[in-house]
Order: sequence, then structure tokens, then C-alpha cells
Amino acid sequence: MRYVLLVSYDGTDFAGFQKQPRDRTVQGELEGAAEQIFGASVKITGSGRTDAGVHALAQVCCFDAQTPVPAAKIAACFNRILPPDLRVVQSAAAPETFDCTRSAKRKTYCYSAYYAPADLPLFDRFAVRLPQKPDLKAMRAAAELLEGEHDFKAFCASGSSAKTSVRTVYSVKIDEQTIPHGAMWKISVCGSGFLYNMVRIIAGELIAIGCGKREGITAALETGARERLAKTMPAKGLCLMNVDYGAELFPAGEE
Amino acid sequence: MRYVLLVSYDGTDFAGFQKQPRDRTVQGELEGAAEQIFGASVKITGSGRTDAGVHALAQVCCFDAQTPVPAAKIAACFNRILPPDLRVVQSAAAPETFDCTRSAKRKTYCYSAYYAPADLPLFDRFAVRLPQKPDLKAMRAAAELLEGEHDFKAFCASGSSAKTSVRTVYSVKIDEQTIPHGAMWKISVCGSGFLYNMVRIIAGELIAIGCGKREGITAALETGARERLAKTMPAKGLCLMNVDYGAELFPAGEE
Repeated sequence: MRYVLLVSYDGTDFAGFQKQPRDRTVQGELEGAAEQIFGASVKITGSGRTDAGVHALAQVCCFDAQTPVPAAKIAACFNRILPPDLRVVQSAAAPETFDCTRSAKRKTYCYSAYYAPADLPLFDRFAVRLPQKPDLKAMRAAAELLEGEHDFKAFCASGSSAKTSVRTVYSVKIDEQTIPHGAMWKISVCGSGFLYNMVRIIAGELIAIGCGKREGITAALETGARERLAKTMPAKGLCLMNVDYGAELFPAGEE
Repeated sequence: MRYVLLVSYDGTDFAGFQKQPRDRTVQGELEGAAEQIFGASVKITGSGRTDAGVHALAQVCCFDAQTPVPAAKIAACFNRILPPDLRVVQSAAAPETFDCTRSAKRKTYCYSAYYAPADLPLFDRFAVRLPQKPDLKAMRAAAELLEGEHDFKAFCASGSSAKTSVRTVYSVKIDEQTIPHGAMWKISVCGSGFLYNMVRIIAGELIAIGCGKREGITAALETGARERLAKTMPAKGLCLMNVDYGAELFPAGEE
């Protein structure tokens, strides 16, 4: 039987999603728990590999196993074993053809950044402090340039193994909220898929434009030149918010 | 000279604001840092004492000291010594008559709670998971009953030393945000001052009403009977958001 999991984690203390020989990873913890639950080695894949320090509210994972446990109860079995910074929020049976990596149609990431005169400890795990306040209108105008199907080669860290750098960005939404003595910006990017560090490079360029940098998106999309864009933002501001498969994976209201 | 500090902390690993002989507290850490900075013992007071586990985005503290350091630079001196879960966001000189406890005119606290089928690790430090979704309209209708000047005796944990339990609640605002497979509610309460556990009891009653409990606010305000109200919510969902002194304490844009 194939099963699908909705997985949520605080990425601070993980060396990313992908299993590593020595470091603590999301995949490593999930597979370790699965071995205890099912009494056999189980390979668990994710919709994608989040980097070290990147968070997820709703990562999707899948695996094959034989078990008499009802599908919806598997989440609770994992949570009895997993550490508190990693939770299986829901579990369900999936069709044999379901592939949580390849079947993903859209993903949404959110990048959180704030301005305050000093670090605010309560935000420190999931948001990055900016040295000045970016202009919301300028960021929103630049964000529109990203929407659509483009070759995002310039928005990719070196070392990527992706076959093509053409991706579709469906939307880039920027929300501004007042916080004591400052403000918080949440940049939500929904796309068909993302290149390595793509959302963190997008966030860096939008914030830089908001702080007065000359817009480099148009030239970067035309030329593929990474150097037209501002620096990659730190991992801890990034969170995987949603993976859309075009169909509901989990029965509504089920725990 | 009297100085005022804007202080921000993640309350998770503090045994509250007030100094304790053995436990790690906000006041204890601040006074320890002040002794290093000023070379003398300094008593630092706060606008109020937050409980163990309660957070602050903008607590206000004050103290007297003799120093050649410009007032605005004192924040950075503290931050070179303080642990990462406690930060002085701004510092300024204050009039000799300023008393950060007694001069406070209004305080705003925010209580954060969410519904999801399992704990979401990224929210675990600052929000409490609810077993069901409360109804926003019902919570908002009940919140209106709290506004105004009332005897909040029923909204107070036993052991309080307050002389009077009459307080003014200026506003109770409830915000609902969608999160993956659930929702987050932020209950913001602005008042002239608060009794011991008052905001956590208010949050508990509003959430219980949203989940179908019969409204107990009217009877509790009339009779002072604590048992008309739902249980006190856990400390970790509570955050001190603002202390209003009727005047700006910190020069705008100064760090």
C-alpha cells in the first residue's frame, strides 16, 4: 500500500530534508520512526528537498508499507516517536500511481522578513531582520515582473542539477503587517516548481528593490545572469506552505 | 540619570520577568548585564511582571545610572552581553518623574491559538493548538461584552495582591488567518491594566464560547464568580505587544 503524509517542521535544528550519513535530517527522522512502526526499512520521499534551516508548515511525503493500522491513524504512530520539532499532521492512503515529487502541480513558499531597531527574539527562528524598511509598492511592482513562464536560470544557485530552468510563477504576493516599532513582510511565491535557492534569490531581489536597488529582474530573465540580482536571503526566513496536487490528498476533517 | 528601555523576549526559557534567587528571569538577565555595563548594581523595573513562559515584543523597563554612554547607544551595550532570547530594541533618556510601572496608561496583549490536526512545530513556541475550530462571530460578539470599565474580579487567578479589580478594557479584537489545513486566531486585548492571568482567562472564555460554551462573561462581571468562566489558557500563547505612556518614549528612527 502507498501512503501519503502531511509533514510540518521547524527547520532550525535540521540539516535539511534529505538524509545524511551523520547529520540530523527530516527524512532521516521520518525513516527512523517508520522502521520502528512497520518493523522494516521504509524509504520515505518528499515533494522536494528543503535546505538546512528551511521550515515547512505543509510538506508532503509518501512511502510504501504493509500495515494493519488504518491509514488515518498512521500520523499518530509517527508522532509518538518523532521529536517535537517534526510532526505528521495527517496521513492517508494514496493511489499506487501517486508520486509525491512528480505529481506535484504547484508549490507555495513564504519568505518572512521584518524591520525593527534590533533583533526580536520571538521572530528569530522564522524571519530575518532587515537593516531598513523596504517600500511595499516598489516590491509589489517588481514582483509582477516574475509572474508567468520564464527561464529562471539567473534565479538559481550554482550546483543545481535541474534539466531545464524554465518554470512558471503563478503569483508573488507581498503582505505587510505592523509590528511594535517596525513592520513584517511576508512574500508568498506560488509556482510550478523552483530551482535551487530560487525563492530565496527572489526574496533578496524584491527586498533590495524595495530598499532602492535598481530593478534587475528584467535583465536577469533576459540574460540569465545571476549577478544582476541581489544576494540570496538566509534559509531561516523560508517556509514551505503548500504543495498542490490538483486533488485533495487528505479526507476533510480527519485527524 | 533615568533611562528607559524597549525590551523584547522569547519567554519560553525564562521563569518570568521578576528576579528569582535561582531561576533564569528577564529582570535577572537585564540587571546582570547592567552591572557589567555600568560597573555598579542597578535595579531595573518593568511596566509589569510577565509570567513564566509569556513573551514580549515590546516590554518597557527603566533604571537610574550614571554613564558617559549616549542614551541611544545603551541598547547596543546590553545586546553585546544579553543572551539571544532577550534583546533591548531601543534605549532613551527619560524624565526623573517617569515610572515605567505607574506611568503606563494602556497595555496591549495578544493571545495566539490555532487549529490543525496535529501540533505545528513552527508555531509551538508562541501559540497553543486548539482541539476544534472556534466560531469567529461568536467570539467577536462575546468580546464586545468585555469592553468598558468593569469589576474584573472573576477574571483573576487567586493570589493576586491588586487593591481593586476594576479595570477598563478599551478593545478586544480577534483576527482569523488561514493556515495549511487549519486556522490561527489572534486575540488582542487593550486595557488600562490587567489582573493576574486576566488576559489568559479572557482568551480561554472567548475560545470556549467559540467552541459552543454558554457565554459566562455577563454573569462573571455581575457576580465576580471565577467558575462562570472557562479555564486559564497556557502562558506560551501570550505576548505583551505594547505599553502606551501617552507620549513617545523613543526618538523616531533611532536605533
